[in-house]
Order: sequence, then C-alpha cells, then structure tokens
Amino acid sequence: MSRFFSSRHASLVPYTPGEQPKVLNVTKLNTNECPFPPSEKALRFAAENTRPLNLYPELQFVDIRGRLAGLYGISPDNFVLGNGSDELLNFAFMAFCDDQKQAAFPNISYGFYPVYAELNHVPYLEIPLREDFSIAPEDYFNLGRTIFIANPNAPTGMALTRAQVDEIVKRNPDSVVVIDEAYVDFGGETCIPLIQKYDNLLVIQTFSKSRSMAGARLGFAAGSEALIADLNTIRYSTNPYNVNSMTLALGLGVLLDKETTRKNCRTIMENRAWTVAELESLGFTVLPSSANFIFARSGRIDGGELYAKLKARNILIRHFDKPEISAWNRITIGTREQMDILLRNIREILEEKP
Amino acid sequence: MSRFFSSRHASLVPYTPGEQPKVLNVTKLNTNECPFPPSEKALRFAAENTRPLNLYPELQFVDIRGRLAGLYGISPDNFVLGNGSDELLNFAFMAFCDDQKQAAFPNISYGFYPVYAELNHVPYLEIPLREDFSIAPEDYFNLGRTIFIANPNAPTGMALTRAQVDEIVKRNPDSVVVIDEAYVDFGGETCIPLIQKYDNLLVIQTFSKSRSMAGARLGFAAGSEALIADLNTIRYSTNPYNVNSMTLALGLGVLLDKETTRKNCRTIMENRAWTVAELESLGFTVLPSSANFIFARSGRIDGGELYAKLKARNILIRHFDKPEISAWNRITIGTREQMDILLRNIREILEEKP
Repeated sequence: MSRFFSSRHASLVPYTPGEQPKVLNVTKLNTNECPFPPSEKALRFAAENTRPLNLYPELQFVDIRGRLAGLYGISPDNFVLGNGSDELLNFAFMAFCDDQKQAAFPNISYGFYPVYAELNHVPYLEIPLREDFSIAPEDYFNLGRTIFIANPNAPTGMALTRAQVDEIVKRNPDSVVVIDEAYVDFGGETCIPLIQKYDNLLVIQTFSKSRSMAGARLGFAAGSEALIADLNTIRYSTNPYNVNSMTLALGLGVLLDKETTRKNCRTIMENRAWTVAELESLGFTVLPSSANFIFARSGRIDGGELYAKLKARNILIRHFDKPEISAWNRITIGTREQMDILLRNIREILEEKP
Repeated sequence: MSRFFSSRHASLVPYTPGEQPKVLNVTKLNTNECPFPPSEKALRFAAENTRPLNLYPELQFVDIRGRLAGLYGISPDNFVLGNGSDELLNFAFMAFCDDQKQAAFPNISYGFYPVYAELNHVPYLEIPLREDFSIAPEDYFNLGRTIFIANPNAPTGMALTRAQVDEIVKRNPDSVVVIDEAYVDFGGETCIPLIQKYDNLLVIQTFSKSRSMAGARLGFAAGSEALIADLNTIRYSTNPYNVNSMTLALGLGVLLDKETTRKNCRTIMENRAWTVAELESLGFTVLPSSANFIFARSGRIDGGELYAKLKARNILIRHFDKPEISAWNRITIGTREQMDILLRNIREILEEKP
C-alpha cells in the first residue's frame, strides 16, 4: 500500500480470481468457462457488424437490448448491459445498498459479494447455507435488506426453483432482491419472467458461461424500468462507454444463434451427468448441480491436496481457502475429452494414496 | 429514481457524454475520436493473437505492460490497464481521495472529474482557469489535495509543458498528482518520464484518441509501483477482468505499429493548423491547441446556435452548457474532407446571419 492510499480502503481485501495462465497448455477446469468457442456464425456476424473501432461505442445498446426484449417478451427499457456481470453486481451494490439498505447474501456463495459490500462500505449479513448446502428460502423472508442470491449458487451448483425465488421476492416487497443467474442455462429456471410481476427484482446474467464469451466481457441486468434507470445513473457516473463495440457485435451474434448455445448447454449437461457418475464410482460425494461445474469431495483426499496434485499434472480446478469447504473442490464441466483427462488423473492420484 | 435507490447517490448528476448516433450518416466532430481506423497491420495482429474468447482474459496484461515498459524505458510494474481511461480516473479517485485527501482540478476541464468526486463523496476544489483559459502552475502549488489535471486540457486544448508539470508535482510531495494525457500525442509533452523521479505522479493515457481505439475501450495508468499496486487493489475489488481479450490483442497490435499512430497524429495536426487558419479568416477566435480538437468562438454567432445549426445540417460538434463557455464550441479535428464540410457549412450559416 502506498502512503497515498485512501484510508477508506485501507482494510480492503480484493477478490481472488481463479488462475488465468497466459500459456494455455493446461486442462482448464477452474473458472467455469464454456469449453466451446463462439460459433462461426456468431463470429461472422460480429466481423460484419462491428461499429468502426475509431468511434466510441453506441451508448444505448439498442440492438442487444432490443433482442433481449424480444427473447424474454419484455421491453428494451428492462435491460442494461455491463462489462461482464461483475460490473453490474457492483453497480447494484452502489445503487441499492447503503447504511439503511444493508446487504444480505448466503455464506457460502460467490466470493465477490462480501468484497463489493466492503468496497462500498455496505454493512452485510451472511446467511449460512443449510446442512446439505442448500439455500432455504424462508431464511430470506422479510429481511429488510438488499438480497443477493446466486441461482444456481456457486460453488455448490444447487438451484432454487422459480417458485422459491418468487416467494423470496414477494416476502421482501420493500427491498431489492438481486438474482445472479450466471449459471442458469445449465438446468436452472430463469426468473426474468417475474420482472413484470415485481418492481423489486433484479436479475443479472452473463455471456461468460453458456454464451462462450468470457474473454469478451458482457453481462446484462433485467429489472423494472426504474431499477434499470438507477443502474444507468451509476453507469453514467462511472464509465458510460462500459461495453466495447466488438463485444456488442459479438453479443448480438451469439443471441442470434440460440441453437448453438442450446446445443453447447446440452452437451455440458450430458458431460456433467457422466462426470458425476464417474466421480461417485470413485467414492466422491457430489452436490446436485444445475450449473456448468460440480462441487465434489473425496473421502480419501483433501480438497487442497487434490487441487495441488492435479495442478502439478497441468490440470486446474478450483479450491477455496474457507474452512467450511476445504474438503471440497469446484470442477468446471468441459468437453468429454477434458473430463476424461481429469478422471484418469484423479484415478492415478487416488491409487498413489496409501 | 426508484424507491430503492441509495440515499448516498440521490443527488448524483451523471456525466453527459457527447452524442453517439447509431446511424453514422453524420460528420462526427463531437467526441474527439480519431478519424482513421486502426491499421490493417494492427487489426491483422489482433485477429491472429486474440486469446480464445470462451476463456477469461489474461489478468496480468503481460504483453501490453511489457510493450509499454519498453516504449517508455520503465518497468511493467509501472503500468496498469483500464476499460478506457475513464475507469482508471475513477479508480484514482477511489484510491487516492478521501475526506483528508480532497480533490482539486481546474474549472474548466474534463466534465467527468466533478462527477467522480461526487460519486465517491470526495470534497473538491475547482480552480478557475486564468483569463486566457490557461492553467497557471502556481495555482496548484502546495495544495494538500489530490490534483487532477488534463494536459492538454479539455475543452481548451491548451497544454502545460513537462517542466511546468514537474514543478507542480515537486511542490505537492505529499499528494498524488494525476495527469490525464488523453490528448498528449497531438503536440503535448508526456510526463511519463517523470515517474522515475516522483512517487506521487500518476499519468493516465487512452487508446481512444491517437490510437484509433475509442470503440475498443483501453486506457493505461503509469506511476510508481506502489501507486499501481493501489490501483490494482481497487481493480481486483471492482472488476478484475476489466479489459477484454480482443481489446488486449488490438492494443498490442496498435502499439507495435507506432508508425501509423505517428502518421495519423501528423495528419491531424496539419488539418488542425489549416482549420484554425480558415476559422480565423472567418473571424473566429481559436485557443492555441495541442489536442485533436480546437476550442473556438465566433463573434457573430453564439456557441449554442452554431451547434444547433450544424446539427440540423448533420454535422456534430460539441457545445457545453456552462455559462463561462457558452459562446464557444469544441470541434474535433477530423480528415481534411470532414473539415471542408464543416467550414463550408459554417460559411453558409454565417452568410444567413443578418
């Protein structure tokens, strides 16, 4: 820390992202990326429809918001885009939290929520998961707080139904409920249809997972026009040109090729079922996942040890330095070939154990 | 404003960017873009060197930071990248300002500085320009505040010399001085070489102007390793994946093709000299510009009226709704053809006047 650093942030502990090695000679199953690139069709669309790069991006996001409105049957004014969904999560903390509107989110969940709360000096309540790692909707009723729930949750992969989220939103009529649907396309139920029913629901999605665009950075928030206007107030006070023109064109191209996204999600869900069965046959406990990752624990090897041994073999998975989940690993579901490599190496590692 | 909006931001007045029309059938001289696209060489490099888009971007920015280090003869650890320089300016307000470290910047200057101060609840002092619109270095000595100076300044286009900035940085040894060099490549002197001399200097540059990448969003900050580490603390607490992989590849491609950047800047400076002479022959007063825009005032037509009449003719320039400068317009220097269109239309508009 320099001698100039703001006293406001002196105790800030930044988020620790998963490793992103520069050289890609690894089996990368650590940050829940899609193993498939954007389709040729989407890339061609982007190449042909990118605004000249010497000009600033179009600020209203007319095309993508129009397309999203059509897909979900609501208005373009129900959407705003972000430089990844992380930016929108931070905007939501800025817009909808303060000393009166304190935050609440599950413990365990996405590790960035407490960082955003600390960054914005928002007091927060962490609500423990139940014994089985599930989120109990009733724990979130009438909280009088701005609520952030990842659904499906990370790193567990477990999902609430839309009816359960509906109940949470209904039981907090005077607070914003933010549903972070980064992983919804792998077996979850999106809550975007509830937006017409509730003015206090904000749904955030990303193009980084099911839509193969982690490297391009794109996320969107859906909510009532008033909530979206608030996020735009923050956006225009922070970084109005937050999404670049190449990403806008590619994002539209990906939305226009729904079939590829759907096919990729199906493949990943098949690979997930197969991987879970294989891991269970090796004695692993695997939580029921509706995401493109699984959360798994071996009775025979600690999570940190498995992570380190796989890393030594050029396979990256994710281990979290939290006592409650130190036995566990989060494993991204990749191609069948990647999962084969993973399982072969896990078998070998287990065989080395006494 | 929704009923959920944070009381902290209730009075926030967002920045108003220049118009970015979706359909580009206009002569666009309003937001200081480069009229030339990135070179074929840079675009080809980008196409061949973009990390797979389904994977997250490389987080350390190894390639671009290495290249910048080589160009400026300092270390990669003296650099961090942002999603445009606006993001880095906000990071600097977050990192280096608080109630003790209040902000100071010129009035008139980049209109985003007071917005960032308000957003971050940083008290700020606006220091008036001198009668001739210049920044007087001595007005910034021993301020005991975090100082933000655009150099060249916007919208005036007038520049301080490196020696003058050196004096300001030296006379504020216990405060960070942020020099915003968005427009430095059109006749200004960069202060990056001063970084080795002072631990309290932060220089911010953008790829949006001389480097033809406004649509791709890329900026960088240069400073002591400790200042850069502070900015990374903010970055990793806000949006670690702030720069996308396509932009990283294109940014490196542009840096590798210095000759095109230099040639474009030369052309723009020639067009500027020509445009200034033509406007002066029409009776305009034009401030001495070291930027890719000029700040000009006609004795015969008000700034707002000229802006509106040009807009009716499909020509966009910038007019600011501030009483001190309401007679003036900021005009981006484009191609010779664009300036021809502008001047022809200005002549016609002036001829219509009684």
